[in-house]
Amino acid sequence: MSQATIAQIERLTGEQLPFAPAHGFRLEALDSGTATVRAPYSNEFLRPGGTISGPVMMGLADYAVYAAVLSCIGIVELAVTTNLNINFLHRPEPGDLLAYARIIKLGKRLAVGEVEMYVEGEEELVAHVTATYSIPPDSVGSPISKSHRTER
Amino acid sequence: MSQATIAQIERLTGEQLPFAPAHGFRLEALDSGTATVRAPYSNEFLRPGGTISGPVMMGLADYAVYAAVLSCIGIVELAVTTNLNINFLHRPEPGDLLAYARIIKLGKRLAVGEVEMYVEGEEELVAHVTATYSIPPDSVGSPISKSHRTER
Amino acid sequence: MSQATIAQIERLTGEQLPFAPAHGFRLEALDSGTATVRAPYSNEFLRPGGTISGPVMMGLADYAVYAAVLSCIGIVELAVTTNLNINFLHRPEPGDLLAYARIIKLGKRLAVGEVEMYVEGEEELVAHVTATYSIPPDSVGSPISKSHRTER
Amino acid sequence: MSQATIAQIERLTGEQLPFAPAHGFRLEALDSGTATVRAPYSNEFLRPGGTISGPVMMGLADYAVYAAVLSCIGIVELAVTTNLNINFLHRPEPGDLLAYARIIKLGKRLAVGEVEMYVEGEEELVAHVTATYSIPPDSVGSPISKSHRTER
Repeated sequence: MSQATIAQIERLTGEQLPFAPAHGFRLEALDSGTATVRAPYSNEFLRPGGTISGPVMMGLADYAVYAAVLSCIGIVELAVTTNLNINFLHRPEPGDLLAYARIIKLGKRLAVGEVEMYVEGEEELVAHVTATYSIPPDSVGSPISKSHRTER
Repeated sequence: MSQATIAQIERLTGEQLPFAPAHGFRLEALDSGTATVRAPYSNEFLRPGGTISGPVMMGLADYAVYAAVLSCIGIVELAVTTNLNINFLHRPEPGDLLAYARIIKLGKRLAVGEVEMYVEGEEELVAHVTATYSIPPDSVGSPISKSHRTER
Repeated sequence: MSQATIAQIERLTGEQLPFAPAHGFRLEALDSGTATVRAPYSNEFLRPGGTISGPVMMGLADYAVYAAVLSCIGIVELAVTTNLNINFLHRPEPGDLLAYARIIKLGKRLAVGEVEMYVEGEEELVAHVTATYSIPPDSVGSPISKSHRTER
Repeated sequence: MSQATIAQIERLTGEQLPFAPAHGFRLEALDSGTATVRAPYSNEFLRPGGTISGPVMMGLADYAVYAAVLSCIGIVELAVTTNLNINFLHRPEPGDLLAYARIIKLGKRLAVGEVEMYVEGEEELVAHVTATYSIPPDSVGSPISKSHRTER
């Protein structure tokens, strides 16, 4: 079960990751360790040929991992990205982008997430991302699910 | 269907990636775009506490992607790694390591693979890797499956 | 000597990387294989506490590498990022961001650039980035400086 | 000034990173936040064509960052790599490899290092690496140089 609700995360996002609401990103699904975020198709994202800009895709992936981290640790301010690696795989066709994030490691101090990004209705991956978040030492959010949390 | 057999790849590996046979890596399964490689548990890999060394895990992941690339393009010499990104997630317990690779992009010039690495019988990911291979311009290997090959 | 002028690159950027002018990024210096890009401090970038958003920093680095690539190969459309890896090192203080890019490999098909990012007047690195660009096969831009171009 | 001597680090390396001495890596220079490691040319590294294997280059870079981290924090066991990203830039010619590492961020919990790798006497970069080390919470090594240590 998620340790935070979509509404709680969206409220925190407005303060902590304003890039996300500014680009219309919507957190659509959330479970313990997973999150789905949608970037609605819109002209402001376009590159010539209808291709969505790289930084927008990076921001979308970052937000999806952020939400997936909070789904594990609850509403914790100041969780910050320390590393993000993106492979751009195919030029996205026009259409909404969907980022599916899942947490692949949750430690006391670091969480690592993986994101697969698609254009809605298409089969090809447009991008693959891994991102690491640093978790503040005295995270006083909701209790942390034992099953996810491991040491390193 | 794979464009190369396990035996063909292992023969090429002996010449091109001698690190793999030198460490006892075994290509155990192969299909179009996927490969499974095993690193048998052995003392020479150990770090104190029974932990397998990082470079061995990187080499294992690299070999798994290599095999998965060849499963798509056939026996092509000189395919070379251009980028590898590894996240070390959990210290591996003693035991055989298994690397599961899948190709997430296959272009004319670049192939990108993703690897999940586990200790056999354990549930936790010990490492996650993405790696990019450069494919030589005039690859004269087996015909390339249309379904995988895409442009960028 | 750069194979493209700042004015030429800024014109292409308006079409190819609209994220850059939309965020006020300015290409300030250009030489063969190097580029400096400025992100003027502005409220729209802010996170609470005055921190500039991660995706903006990624976009800034990407643009700096793009310009440095074009400084080597001339005005070539369709050069695209295939991989970007960013380490966020220190929270940027309020102030203009400066991204210093240099090309560390220039091949026929791939160029790799490295970026160091600072807040103007500060000594600490705020981010370090490596990015790979794919160069189209029949680049018909300006002649390519022999000294940079190498094979892999 | 380095917080550890070459001899101290080599002793710890024998226990913690046995891959390094097993491949003949030698820590040649050390200062506060920097380290130089040599991989002597030897047949066991070879790939056909005289090219050194990728995993050996990754292991060399990892060791160089490890030494540079210890130069800042002193002799601390259990510092572990959490992420490593390598770009392979040029095939190394026969010859000794030299890895030059420098710490680009030193926090309480994470240190990030960058490595440039050359064949001795050659001008081209053969590889570029960034690696992140996790530093144990109660590092009881030598005092930590204030000037390097920063928060994130």
